[in-house]
Amino acid sequence: MKTDVQIGQEAKMIHINEVAQKIGIEEDYLSHYGKYKAKVSLDLFDKYKDKKDGKLILVTAINPTPAGEGKTTTNIGLSMGLNKIGKKAITTLREPSLGPSFGMKGGAAGGGYAQVVPMEDINLHFTGDFHAITASHNLISALLDNHMHQGNVLGIDSRRVVWKRVLDMNDRALRNIVVGLGGKPNGVPREDGFDITVASEIMAIFCLAHDLEDLKRRVGDIIVAYTFAGEPVTARDLKAEGAVALIMKDAMAPNLVQTLENTPALIHGGPFANIAHGCNSLIATQMGLKLADYTVTEAGFGADLGAEKFFNIASRFGNLKPDATVIVATVRALKYNGGVKKDELGNENLDALAKGFGNLEKHIENIKKFGVPAVVALNKFPTDTEAEVKFVLENCERLGAKAVLSDVWANGGDGGVEMAKAVVEVCENQKSNFKPLYEVESTIKEKIETIAKEIYGAEGVDFTKKCAKEIANIEKLGLDKMPICMAKTQYSLSDDPTLLGRPTGFRITVRDIRVAKGAGFLVALTGEIMTMPGLPKVPAANNMDILPSGEIVGLF
Amino acid sequence: MKTDVQIGQEAKMIHINEVAQKIGIEEDYLSHYGKYKAKVSLDLFDKYKDKKDGKLILVTAINPTPAGEGKTTTNIGLSMGLNKIGKKAITTLREPSLGPSFGMKGGAAGGGYAQVVPMEDINLHFTGDFHAITASHNLISALLDNHMHQGNVLGIDSRRVVWKRVLDMNDRALRNIVVGLGGKPNGVPREDGFDITVASEIMAIFCLAHDLEDLKRRVGDIIVAYTFAGEPVTARDLKAEGAVALIMKDAMAPNLVQTLENTPALIHGGPFANIAHGCNSLIATQMGLKLADYTVTEAGFGADLGAEKFFNIASRFGNLKPDATVIVATVRALKYNGGVKKDELGNENLDALAKGFGNLEKHIENIKKFGVPAVVALNKFPTDTEAEVKFVLENCERLGAKAVLSDVWANGGDGGVEMAKAVVEVCENQKSNFKPLYEVESTIKEKIETIAKEIYGAEGVDFTKKCAKEIANIEKLGLDKMPICMAKTQYSLSDDPTLLGRPTGFRITVRDIRVAKGAGFLVALTGEIMTMPGLPKVPAANNMDILPSGEIVGLF
Repeated sequence: MKTDVQIGQEAKMIHINEVAQKIGIEEDYLSHYGKYKAKVSLDLFDKYKDKKDGKLILVTAINPTPAGEGKTTTNIGLSMGLNKIGKKAITTLREPSLGPSFGMKGGAAGGGYAQVVPMEDINLHFTGDFHAITASHNLISALLDNHMHQGNVLGIDSRRVVWKRVLDMNDRALRNIVVGLGGKPNGVPREDGFDITVASEIMAIFCLAHDLEDLKRRVGDIIVAYTFAGEPVTARDLKAEGAVALIMKDAMAPNLVQTLENTPALIHGGPFANIAHGCNSLIATQMGLKLADYTVTEAGFGADLGAEKFFNIASRFGNLKPDATVIVATVRALKYNGGVKKDELGNENLDALAKGFGNLEKHIENIKKFGVPAVVALNKFPTDTEAEVKFVLENCERLGAKAVLSDVWANGGDGGVEMAKAVVEVCENQKSNFKPLYEVESTIKEKIETIAKEIYGAEGVDFTKKCAKEIANIEKLGLDKMPICMAKTQYSLSDDPTLLGRPTGFRITVRDIRVAKGAGFLVALTGEIMTMPGLPKVPAANNMDILPSGEIVGLF
Repeated sequence: MKTDVQIGQEAKMIHINEVAQKIGIEEDYLSHYGKYKAKVSLDLFDKYKDKKDGKLILVTAINPTPAGEGKTTTNIGLSMGLNKIGKKAITTLREPSLGPSFGMKGGAAGGGYAQVVPMEDINLHFTGDFHAITASHNLISALLDNHMHQGNVLGIDSRRVVWKRVLDMNDRALRNIVVGLGGKPNGVPREDGFDITVASEIMAIFCLAHDLEDLKRRVGDIIVAYTFAGEPVTARDLKAEGAVALIMKDAMAPNLVQTLENTPALIHGGPFANIAHGCNSLIATQMGLKLADYTVTEAGFGADLGAEKFFNIASRFGNLKPDATVIVATVRALKYNGGVKKDELGNENLDALAKGFGNLEKHIENIKKFGVPAVVALNKFPTDTEAEVKFVLENCERLGAKAVLSDVWANGGDGGVEMAKAVVEVCENQKSNFKPLYEVESTIKEKIETIAKEIYGAEGVDFTKKCAKEIANIEKLGLDKMPICMAKTQYSLSDDPTLLGRPTGFRITVRDIRVAKGAGFLVALTGEIMTMPGLPKVPAANNMDILPSGEIVGLF
């Protein structure tokens, strides 16, 4: 069997101009990065401003397990399947982060016969968007420390700087640092730390901004510190937002590449799915809607985090109207949710499947709460038995969700035709009545409780003393009327990663809340969220190489 | 009078394919970054492997003064002038660093009617080369700290880590930091610091490597720390060099852009001119030699640092044979060297000019010591009087250096015709007998003394106790047979920035010496060299913006 890399490297790519042509993008709107990558000018929105949007499909999943669900693969495969049945379809995806490639995992660009290419470029610097975010973020840091060093007219309390620095690198030694040492010429000593670039609020802003002016406004709104008097200090107070917009000007244009079947893919932005909303840029999704009959996008982690945020945050800000949601599941992952150990997932086990099915059931119910039709894509594995597949498909239909087998990993677009037909049928026959689950005008506690009860199935929410104090402070500052971005474990519907399936009778504990005023949401933290990963004992980087022949080794 | 930005933005650029065509680069060898930038494949060297190299012209200058000399402007203008008189000529330049743009100065891409374009791109991310260097450098740091965290099998002494981290940002608060705080999961606490990216040894390697394999080998040679037993630990010991080569693969190809007159420019790499050698990449220069009749390049700071290193380091490693050297001077800068204050430079002062001329005289003598013919380009200013110009030109000729007026700032290539003719005449009639000034096999002290006496005109060199000890250590490790990279003030031929003109009777003090084994040289430090700049009280970033119209403000 061929590896993902082999399949990817054997791909017959076509020139990006041809990919663009298929969806009505003339060459003048492209800024090329070699033959197979191009940025698409935002001027395209002017050209198509009177054109009706196409259909919007969100791909989400059950709670992730070590068994693997294949959400990105399904997203890419569905878009290829739609093209197979004569629909113009685009997949929109998040850009992979460079840092984690050097640690545990290889690259991220789909798998099997459902990949986007050129994968090595997408997984390295791509078109430099993340580098621009890193530079923008650290410019604000430099301006902040310079302000304190040059007299601190704003009265910034060095103990209350909330703006860390960032690097696109897994580097645990930078998590907690002290900067400004070495005496007077070298700045003001204070505690600091680095996050990974995808955790930057600028990344979240980048993915929610309508255009460069909107980005500039939002960057200006970022709260970077508090004064000795407790007043927020923003990036605008540091006069940073104009320079950041300048640094980000090219990055704003979405990146066009192709799938293995030469259909179009827009890859743009990639915020964390815990402390941020975990979706590709609104601009890419909105551009897809203008260009294609069907735009297939996805959201990070399972539906409890990804879909919830796509609906309550991204769709709200982007005025998106999702037409259907595809929930990806596998028989193996459902059995894992039913308590089967990883190395026994190959054996038929209908009891465990029935138990684990509760997880999928809850996600189907949740999607309906947003008024969006749900389709279940059961991602096929060779070990699945007929009885197991039948059980899942029948029970999904019983819950009112169309359910189909997907075989895009092994068969590309052909393996996605059935899924594509199901999606089209749902879009044509079931009207979406999408609306977010809560109003931003509700109190912070009400909003969090709504998500916890309605989506997670919790009995209630406990707020730590620290958190309650912070909520009171946020209300005092008038910053409470924003949507909530939940930072929670992705492995369970609850905040306890060991509670699989469909847990009941649990409560959620919110231990802290942070203001991302630039992004436009409040981050509610349950448990510890790691925003700077470390490298493992044997980092993937140790085995990476590029041979004299140009062959790349160890990246995937 | 139009500003540089106005002139740059009014430029009539042609598509980069047309620029490439002029010098025999077919489109297949280009990797486009938009319409006006492209990377040129190193496969071009195969195609032209039997072609004879063109002429190589180094542009250098007298010691820099606040009056400004216009070295880059002269470099660009000379290449345009050569094209005007029917010679195929390329300018090769260093890439500007992003960080300093946010501080004091604006961008760096020539001036007046001798600029390279698109200037805003060149001054921002350009094609991402520096971002790749930042990522490569910090990957080595992460691997190093991870190694210590995961058991430290190599026995790295955390007090003797010599590999700092880097960012392309002016950020004094990062000069001296403590990393690895926060307890056991968060690494090993130790003192650390950030340099600016251009100070990275990877930047120096990037600019001296013949190809990606050579870069990989040199990166492996980098000494990052010493063990408790005092043995050097290299990047190869950390298994970093393969991943770094992968990160750097695209960056290795030189960047093709154009001058205001649509003639070709290769801009590639930009190492510091103090702790590194201060020249654009050898690959770019060598590519120029294959493509053009005349390749015009330059070196950082004045000839005592720039030309000396271009000859003793870059030319040695690159097997370059410079055919002529252009020394840039201005009447104003010479008067400044003669003791005139900055705001009185507009007044005729032949006495001061005669006194300051000694500086130029010494540089002319120095160039000859390398066996290379010298041409003086007197960069014209409106305040220059006829008598002053006459004095300089006549005295240069007296010293055996052809001397001409250059007016490329005001008149572009037309203002460089006279200079171009002089350069061609010298190349055709005076044979270059280039050879480096010392053998690498000499001792460290001998090599430093040769540079100090022959080039600076010092009476001798003093080595601090610390430095003498370090030299002994380097000799013990067998790392002494490398060229010397002097880190010295650029403002004086001596190591005292206040000694202008042609100082005599002084000694040089070398306080420390560092091994850049990957780059292949030893850095001798005189005085304090700042490798992480800070931002000023009112950073340039505060006034930067991009308007809704797309107009860029404050970058230059």
